[in-house]
Amino acid sequence: MSDIQNADPLLTECRNMADRAKAASRGLAIAPGSAKDGWLRRSARAIRERSAEILEANARDVAAGPGFGLNSAAIDRLTLDPRRLEKIASSLEEVAALPDPVGEVIAASRRPNGLDVSQVRVPLGVVFMIFESRPNVTVDASAICVKSGNAAILRGGKEALNSNLALYRVLADGLAPSGLPADAVQLVATTDRAAVGHLLGMPDRVDLAIPRGGESLIRRVVAEARMPVLKHYTGNCHVYVDADADLAMAVKVVVNAKAQRPGVCNAAETLLVHRDVASKFLPLAADALQARGVELRGDDATRAILPGIRAAEPADWDTEYADLILAVGVVDSLDDAIAHINRHGSGHTDAILTRSLAPARKFVAEVDSAAVVVNASTRFNDGGELGLGAEIGISTDKFHARGPCGLRELTTTRWVIYGDGQVRE
Amino acid sequence: MSDIQNADPLLTECRNMADRAKAASRGLAIAPGSAKDGWLRRSARAIRERSAEILEANARDVAAGPGFGLNSAAIDRLTLDPRRLEKIASSLEEVAALPDPVGEVIAASRRPNGLDVSQVRVPLGVVFMIFESRPNVTVDASAICVKSGNAAILRGGKEALNSNLALYRVLADGLAPSGLPADAVQLVATTDRAAVGHLLGMPDRVDLAIPRGGESLIRRVVAEARMPVLKHYTGNCHVYVDADADLAMAVKVVVNAKAQRPGVCNAAETLLVHRDVASKFLPLAADALQARGVELRGDDATRAILPGIRAAEPADWDTEYADLILAVGVVDSLDDAIAHINRHGSGHTDAILTRSLAPARKFVAEVDSAAVVVNASTRFNDGGELGLGAEIGISTDKFHARGPCGLRELTTTRWVIYGDGQVRE
Repeated sequence: MSDIQNADPLLTECRNMADRAKAASRGLAIAPGSAKDGWLRRSARAIRERSAEILEANARDVAAGPGFGLNSAAIDRLTLDPRRLEKIASSLEEVAALPDPVGEVIAASRRPNGLDVSQVRVPLGVVFMIFESRPNVTVDASAICVKSGNAAILRGGKEALNSNLALYRVLADGLAPSGLPADAVQLVATTDRAAVGHLLGMPDRVDLAIPRGGESLIRRVVAEARMPVLKHYTGNCHVYVDADADLAMAVKVVVNAKAQRPGVCNAAETLLVHRDVASKFLPLAADALQARGVELRGDDATRAILPGIRAAEPADWDTEYADLILAVGVVDSLDDAIAHINRHGSGHTDAILTRSLAPARKFVAEVDSAAVVVNASTRFNDGGELGLGAEIGISTDKFHARGPCGLRELTTTRWVIYGDGQVRE
Repeated sequence: MSDIQNADPLLTECRNMADRAKAASRGLAIAPGSAKDGWLRRSARAIRERSAEILEANARDVAAGPGFGLNSAAIDRLTLDPRRLEKIASSLEEVAALPDPVGEVIAASRRPNGLDVSQVRVPLGVVFMIFESRPNVTVDASAICVKSGNAAILRGGKEALNSNLALYRVLADGLAPSGLPADAVQLVATTDRAAVGHLLGMPDRVDLAIPRGGESLIRRVVAEARMPVLKHYTGNCHVYVDADADLAMAVKVVVNAKAQRPGVCNAAETLLVHRDVASKFLPLAADALQARGVELRGDDATRAILPGIRAAEPADWDTEYADLILAVGVVDSLDDAIAHINRHGSGHTDAILTRSLAPARKFVAEVDSAAVVVNASTRFNDGGELGLGAEIGISTDKFHARGPCGLRELTTTRWVIYGDGQVRE
């Protein structure tokens, strides 16, 4: 009570919002899949029908972008157009087509005393999603939360507020007509940052926080959150070329891992090469990488083979460039490669190129990362590529979820026990 | 570097211990199940063979117990005898008989591009277990950690230090001869509490903290830990007797749920009764409960039927008595019972007694607890009873593990991808 009397209005507003979300989460947890999928499809249609309203709101954000100090890349991320809006709409239909994770029976047995026990997948409850300037996250996050039976509280970047509000209105308008709780999705409309801190301080009302954005946003959320946080830091990923790798395949894979989309977390940052093939492989790789505009930074052994490249500093081995830069090192053995990766890597995605079974098995067993890849690009550590459907990021934590986080990773489990009067002796 | 120079000796010692544990965890993660089970069986034999040494150390702790302010119940928990030691030894053999959770393939598929992808169960890494005076936890925790492929750092209560050291020596002596890393299990031998804080502050070296003991211990660990914590607070569990329950069955179940072992977390603390059967059921239940020494505390409607009992205060509905006390309330409907449980319960274990399918399904769907039970005692929310084998506690969290925590709950998963040169387009 004194708690409430002393509260500032924003804290009270946040608490009320979280209480409404918690109440909605109870209805959502038992909502049939047909209602959730109906809302997803209805929302896709509504985005198409109300595209003018959404694009107009987005144009206001884009016009104000330079005033927020957004550079051209940030403005591009913020900008919607009919093509991007159609992609957002169709992503809702893709989520609708995924199986409902809620109610999945993970294990079930009849115990010797006749009890029927089962472990069943259920939603977490209330998810608080904090994100930066891409307005599509408003829709993606709402879709994945509702489909997994969780109420969502969304907080986007202030520079995308008009776009987020327009998209949110389209989504929210369809909830009640679809038979879902009207508060299943809520948007924090204030730009006051204190609202984020308030909501992160309510572990009884909010079950999970998900920051989606740069490392500074994630660190801030981790520092403030009193509930679990599903994090996806960017990755320091490695490609290791073993002594008997198919070198043409290795060139193709390392170029893809580094250059196909250098800004993402599953792009490679370091290339390690076995000493026995370094003098043959490195010139081939360097040619192909440099043709794609990649800057190489090598250790002494690499620079003995590729004298023109810049020397790698110690910090290079720990750096996630997220750019067209690649650190290159020569190792004496598979063991040295594994030790290097476990020491410098971020536990995200690491790949080996080899034609031999034993090194492949050893690499898979001993590299302690969310995904280990044999003879393919690191870029495959992705929810869509692994068959999960929609994802909200790639966790490098070990607890609860590791790797791409899809619908299942937004659920928990519970035990259901049916008996006919059993008691414990 | 400056970090190390400024460190106090205890911090350095803790860091070295955690580094050794991390190194050991890499060996343990790839240890064959036969080595782990061999160590468990060897340890069981060694406990039997070296029982004199263990009992002598325990006798010293027991003699010193009153000096630590231990009451007779605490001394009893601390005390070992040949029967209890045999139970400890045979529990190791039971863990050896469980399937190895490491390497389990949870999902696997061939993707359209020919990649073979699988999600595989792997250990978490290093587990730090902090516990109170029961020396058997030294053995149970070591067994469950090693079997699940995790290195263990153990920190027991100071009043059990001699017992824990004796048991630890027996376990540790068998590690290397079994082909496991010698540092797979380590015991924090200092009684300086600062060691706990140091280890809880090393999220890069320790993957999980598990406090096992009273609520104050758990809250202290949660407050200090910078890594995930697997917690098992005690439970505020309910038994709800629906309008058409089998009343004889309901009496038997509520007596078992409350009185069979009142001090444990899955014992019932509140009985809710549908108004339609209250006047018939409550006198039957009261007789049976009072015959077992249970004190009843009722709301007004209950006391109208059982005038002799004490009035329940508002705080009673939120209290985990862990004692022979039961709060009793009359509700107007199943909905009211569910609302009461979701408001006052701790999300641990809640049971309904009913002969009708619809209320059973509604209760199961809407009560948000780790275990929901139909027509059986709350006491069945237990790793052994649910078929998990060994457990280290019952989690009331939703993240990572919910309900009894056995071997699987001490693991995580990773993705393994095999290809033949695939790249992303």
